[in-house]
Amino acid sequence: MKKPLILVTNDDGIAAPGLRALVEVARAFGEVVVVAPDSPQSAQGHAITIAEPLRLNKVEVFEDFDAWECSGTPVDCVKLARHVVLKDRVPDLCLSGINHGSNASINILYSGTLSAAMEASLEGIPSVGFSLLDYGWDADFTAARHYAARIVEWVLAHGLDGCKLLNVNVPKLPLSQIKGLRVCRQAEGRWVEDFMEARDPRGEPYYWLTGRFECNDDGEDTDVGALMRGYVSVVPSGHDLTVHAAIPALKAMEKSIVHTPANQ
Amino acid sequence: MKKPLILVTNDDGIAAPGLRALVEVARAFGEVVVVAPDSPQSAQGHAITIAEPLRLNKVEVFEDFDAWECSGTPVDCVKLARHVVLKDRVPDLCLSGINHGSNASINILYSGTLSAAMEASLEGIPSVGFSLLDYGWDADFTAARHYAARIVEWVLAHGLDGCKLLNVNVPKLPLSQIKGLRVCRQAEGRWVEDFMEARDPRGEPYYWLTGRFECNDDGEDTDVGALMRGYVSVVPSGHDLTVHAAIPALKAMEKSIVHTPANQ
Repeated sequence: MKKPLILVTNDDGIAAPGLRALVEVARAFGEVVVVAPDSPQSAQGHAITIAEPLRLNKVEVFEDFDAWECSGTPVDCVKLARHVVLKDRVPDLCLSGINHGSNASINILYSGTLSAAMEASLEGIPSVGFSLLDYGWDADFTAARHYAARIVEWVLAHGLDGCKLLNVNVPKLPLSQIKGLRVCRQAEGRWVEDFMEARDPRGEPYYWLTGRFECNDDGEDTDVGALMRGYVSVVPSGHDLTVHAAIPALKAMEKSIVHTPANQ
Repeated sequence: MKKPLILVTNDDGIAAPGLRALVEVARAFGEVVVVAPDSPQSAQGHAITIAEPLRLNKVEVFEDFDAWECSGTPVDCVKLARHVVLKDRVPDLCLSGINHGSNASINILYSGTLSAAMEASLEGIPSVGFSLLDYGWDADFTAARHYAARIVEWVLAHGLDGCKLLNVNVPKLPLSQIKGLRVCRQAEGRWVEDFMEARDPRGEPYYWLTGRFECNDDGEDTDVGALMRGYVSVVPSGHDLTVHAAIPALKAMEKSIVHTPANQ
């Protein structure tokens, strides 16, 4: 049987320990190709680079297979991987991460890690974004590696027919203390911002974005809830932000807002 | 009655004609505050700036009310507007655009315009992103202004109870040829990429991202379909990317992937 082709990327950059951990997982299952940002690209969301050109360099960071670093965003990495590095070879799977820090709840919208997975899924490639709830560069990826391997095994065996990608988060716990895995919905939540103002040497103000995540969704079935209870969370995700249930009521707009040149 | 406070932003930058068109719409309905990027920020998605500080400067681009330009992304603009410019005053409405170019279908994921509207909606502010299907800097915003005014009027009167934001796209047609407005779902679609490779003076390769949008969703009820038929499209949108229908089948994972230290 042909080994699956697995594209691995992230948003913390080519040198991140989390990328190395995910590569270790992926290589047990297939042929690995890494295309990752040449610098940290956290919180880049689904940004793409259109106003400047992109650089792509082959790098020798892994002993026995090819890796490229790219000057762009995580989404750029996936596009370059797909269309320049791999040309006509379509990966069987795209893995992104393991992110240093949570991407649960609405963080899927801000996260470069998940946007990379989403981009691959837009190309029809089953994709999984992995994140560990530990921002430390020296984070212990033992438990995340264990669950990532089992999830990759599952996706290769079963596919992702019902959804486009999985958003997987792993609590900051030793493997022995993790209670298992829960398939969840994305929790409602928001960032409560708090800008730090400072002055430059010329006395001009500048601002650092800071803030804390707040989850006011106490449903039993959310990713945030599962993580708090000590489970790995898996959210089957897609590309559709439509609130379908809101369409019927809003249809009243169609009759109300008509083309009335007199109103111009 | 107190005039509503309307935050206006965009992703094409403070100097864009589309921003000026939207400001003209907004000022008829309330007190306007503009906070927009100081340079074009198209395709920035939901990117935020965390690795460098942000600049915020008051600018005199509109005669009779305050405007600020920000060095960051559209999402940064909304965060700075909310927490630095307006401090404890919460806008009643956030309008983003009018974007020069379509944000229909999955372009909601890439668009800075829509991400700004989404960020405001995450803060609980009813929001609308407007886009005109004309990339030209000299685009005719007459029809877009007409429909934007009617939609703002509607949202101020009825609110957006059933959803978080509206994604509005206007076809590139004279007002007299637009057939009306349709409330739609987001079409499935994708970008088909095609990188342009070039060489710098040292002979090193670099890549320009290019591509064309492809919609293979021929549903009658999509935004792309409505636009093609000459209607303004309105997609009620939210923050939830969960594919809820996929959860039951994936639940099998919970039993299959258990904590088995022997597998480590």
